[in-house]
Amino acid sequence: MTGLSGELFIGADRISGSGQAIHGWNPATGERLDPAYPGASLADVERACGLADEAFDPFRALPLGARADFLERIAANILGIGDALIERAMAETGLPRGRLEGERGRTVTQLRLFAEVVRAGRFLEARVDPAQPDRQPAPRPDLRLRMIGLGPVAVFGASNFPLAFSVAGGDTASALAAGCPVVVKAHSAHPGTSELVGKAVQQAVAECGLPAGVFSLLFGNGTDIGRALVADPRIKAVGFTGSRSGGLALLEVAQGRPEPIPVYAEMSSINPVLLLPGALAERAPEIARAFVASVTLGAGQFCTNPGLLVAVEGEGLDAFVEGAALAMASAEPQVMLTAGIARAYGEGVDRLGAAGEVTLAGRGRAASGNQGQAALFSVSAKAFLANPALQEEVFGAAALLVRCGEAAELHSVLRALQGQLTAALHVADGDAGLVQGLLPLLERKVGRIIFNNFGTGVEVAHAMVHGGPFPATSDSRTTSVGTLAIDRFLRPVSYQDMPEALLPDELKSANPLAIPRLVDGA
Amino acid sequence: MTGLSGELFIGADRISGSGQAIHGWNPATGERLDPAYPGASLADVERACGLADEAFDPFRALPLGARADFLERIAANILGIGDALIERAMAETGLPRGRLEGERGRTVTQLRLFAEVVRAGRFLEARVDPAQPDRQPAPRPDLRLRMIGLGPVAVFGASNFPLAFSVAGGDTASALAAGCPVVVKAHSAHPGTSELVGKAVQQAVAECGLPAGVFSLLFGNGTDIGRALVADPRIKAVGFTGSRSGGLALLEVAQGRPEPIPVYAEMSSINPVLLLPGALAERAPEIARAFVASVTLGAGQFCTNPGLLVAVEGEGLDAFVEGAALAMASAEPQVMLTAGIARAYGEGVDRLGAAGEVTLAGRGRAASGNQGQAALFSVSAKAFLANPALQEEVFGAAALLVRCGEAAELHSVLRALQGQLTAALHVADGDAGLVQGLLPLLERKVGRIIFNNFGTGVEVAHAMVHGGPFPATSDSRTTSVGTLAIDRFLRPVSYQDMPEALLPDELKSANPLAIPRLVDGA
Repeated sequence: MTGLSGELFIGADRISGSGQAIHGWNPATGERLDPAYPGASLADVERACGLADEAFDPFRALPLGARADFLERIAANILGIGDALIERAMAETGLPRGRLEGERGRTVTQLRLFAEVVRAGRFLEARVDPAQPDRQPAPRPDLRLRMIGLGPVAVFGASNFPLAFSVAGGDTASALAAGCPVVVKAHSAHPGTSELVGKAVQQAVAECGLPAGVFSLLFGNGTDIGRALVADPRIKAVGFTGSRSGGLALLEVAQGRPEPIPVYAEMSSINPVLLLPGALAERAPEIARAFVASVTLGAGQFCTNPGLLVAVEGEGLDAFVEGAALAMASAEPQVMLTAGIARAYGEGVDRLGAAGEVTLAGRGRAASGNQGQAALFSVSAKAFLANPALQEEVFGAAALLVRCGEAAELHSVLRALQGQLTAALHVADGDAGLVQGLLPLLERKVGRIIFNNFGTGVEVAHAMVHGGPFPATSDSRTTSVGTLAIDRFLRPVSYQDMPEALLPDELKSANPLAIPRLVDGA
Repeated sequence: MTGLSGELFIGADRISGSGQAIHGWNPATGERLDPAYPGASLADVERACGLADEAFDPFRALPLGARADFLERIAANILGIGDALIERAMAETGLPRGRLEGERGRTVTQLRLFAEVVRAGRFLEARVDPAQPDRQPAPRPDLRLRMIGLGPVAVFGASNFPLAFSVAGGDTASALAAGCPVVVKAHSAHPGTSELVGKAVQQAVAECGLPAGVFSLLFGNGTDIGRALVADPRIKAVGFTGSRSGGLALLEVAQGRPEPIPVYAEMSSINPVLLLPGALAERAPEIARAFVASVTLGAGQFCTNPGLLVAVEGEGLDAFVEGAALAMASAEPQVMLTAGIARAYGEGVDRLGAAGEVTLAGRGRAASGNQGQAALFSVSAKAFLANPALQEEVFGAAALLVRCGEAAELHSVLRALQGQLTAALHVADGDAGLVQGLLPLLERKVGRIIFNNFGTGVEVAHAMVHGGPFPATSDSRTTSVGTLAIDRFLRPVSYQDMPEALLPDELKSANPLAIPRLVDGA
């Protein structure tokens, strides 16, 4: 692949790492891809963090328009890579062209949306409480508040979104939008894709005349570089999308620092889907087809993949199972992201199939190599409740149907669930009473509640929550997709009786930026 | 004291604890106060948390107006206690009547302000992204977002604000406003005051017809009850104001849970005060008098007490020191909150005075019993930078002046500081350039920057931040005073394609609550 050097990005520099090298691998062919990516050293981590720290004050002091321009420039540069980006990503991930072109669009849209958010200035939460010099018994001072960035942010790319949740994905976009420099640890499954995007960001930094430390990109085998990055005292927050074990390991490092820092780890979720009796009576075959389409989408490699179905026994459910088995039987096997993920998926399916009282209800077409073969299993609510291991995510196109003897068991199953990213409900008019009873419980368990659809397809929007109670994420107060994600990297600062000339523009009395502000609470 | 029973409040019940008893003590007289407060058992903690969990869904489902009414009813009931509350608090804390009457006013104002916040509904951050069925390449679903409470909250009362940061103080008010039931662990220094306020809250729960578990109040000696409370799986967040060791201990418990939860611990701060050369040249004696008034206010027992002064050598600084020593010499000793706090203060002053290169620059009138004697010490910037122990908070009316050889040393001293609640700057026109250079650093170190005043006196306002980087607090993204404090106990939930009839009122299309909402980001 021309133009790939295998080097690290440390601010404005490109240097070759000195650690153990990683390579991209084509999961469809098993072929090793050039170049080699020698890993960063601890000194490289140090340097990237030092530069990020130096860049923080000048970067956050930029006018909002300049910060927004930078995000848009990144988007333009990513598009400017052209088809080489799609081809390299296809080779490294096994994902089809259409999916990756869509993901590139999503990545670019995300950067542009955050540029809009920055320009609009609402994220600053500017507040002005004017002085009340005559207030009794004591005068009130002038108080003004704005949000500022937390400081340099460490971002860990995800394997399953090589563009939209990787080097210039949602975490990076929202951190930069918040005024925080970013040090990315690239995911080892797509180093070439990471390098191409890293170059686009590094160029944008230079083109916009920003301090070089606004962005660095490190490669590294194993976990040492990631841990060192999170442990560095200059890093003030962490964005991560990946496995539960990976997220919890970083959380532990962050909590063990002399100064603990927030970790936003989006980890694992089985995304319960409730098939209510009215909906099943009305349209079981249609729901079954839609379910199979959702569970097999992208080889099931989505955080929001529907891994758990919950329904009440009856004719409607029988019809659903029949329809799902039928649809799944013609589901083609799909190449998974890496050999390791394909292996883990196969083991997870075997484990589910071998669990007590679990039966196979449907299977996709046979797979070979690094492909995944879709699978649907079935278990009684009673057996599910007795075996917490059945809640473990099997990352891929597999789902478990929990059959409840009566509607009351829906509550018991939901109550037993850990925190999740999403829950979906398939409902008809007759189900309203049942749904109303379930909603308070669902709200406590998940970040997003979906009606008559599935969680796959996460809109980049203002009202999106891609988050949820632990262990779906490490911090339920936030989202990693959508404009609210910027709040993760901000903290409030209050200014008391600050001379007008010293006030930042967003807090000056005349409101020169014309941003929305809360004045005396209104 | 008539009307005090020494019992716990477990939901609607009053029961006598079975653990080791605590008593109030009058720090002015050393007298033990009746009644005894036998501690809660682990079963009492269990029951309080169970009731809180049961109360959560019905409580948060209340119309906003009813939730606001409840907060106002608590305020009215606290006023309804009358002078018995002030007298008991005076006896238990040694604080003077005027201060406690003021603090009661603050407590009531705070509850009423959060009632306003609840009615205004802005805290719900309601967002609506309408469906775009014709969007290409795929339709956009209807997405709506609102904030909901995290769940039951554990609140730990503070010793130094027996009303405003105790049973019905800022943490409780903001958690209830967020729709979260509260289980309070009373501070052992003012159990009688806690009981009186607890009764006012319990009555408000009954009068408003709320589920009993919305509020419980536990007494307990030592740390077992507090730890058990934070460890209980039904508790979803913690509010704490107190020592660093206490806050860090609770943080450790919270992080070690199977489901980690946020801890908002406001711990310790020495609140640097920068005396800039222009200001000292202009009005050193005036600043010196104001400083002594601030550092001795309430025997120095404020989180925002000015414990560190930083200034550049010169005639102005000499004049300041002379003025401060003079003002301090006539500062009367004041009774401290507890014998333990008075002892720790005395030890802290001795430790400071004995530290290498630290000299005494001023001293208040001699103290006896549980009184604290004001103290001002002085040290060179070089010696300060060489000894991190000089940053340790001495809780009480003591401060350390750091003398810088030149202006550049101001930066070095600030850079060496840990996170703080506040920084204050005393400036004159000629200091503007210096201040501009210091501001970015200050913003990274503190939650509130004050001009020409001191941090004592924390307004309950919209633009207040009473928070700051670790270790001033355990979570710099928040504030424990002011309306923004409600955000600590909220998390977002997104609803996708939810049938109109099922939507909560705040998200219905017609906006029946007439609250501010973000529609398509605008």
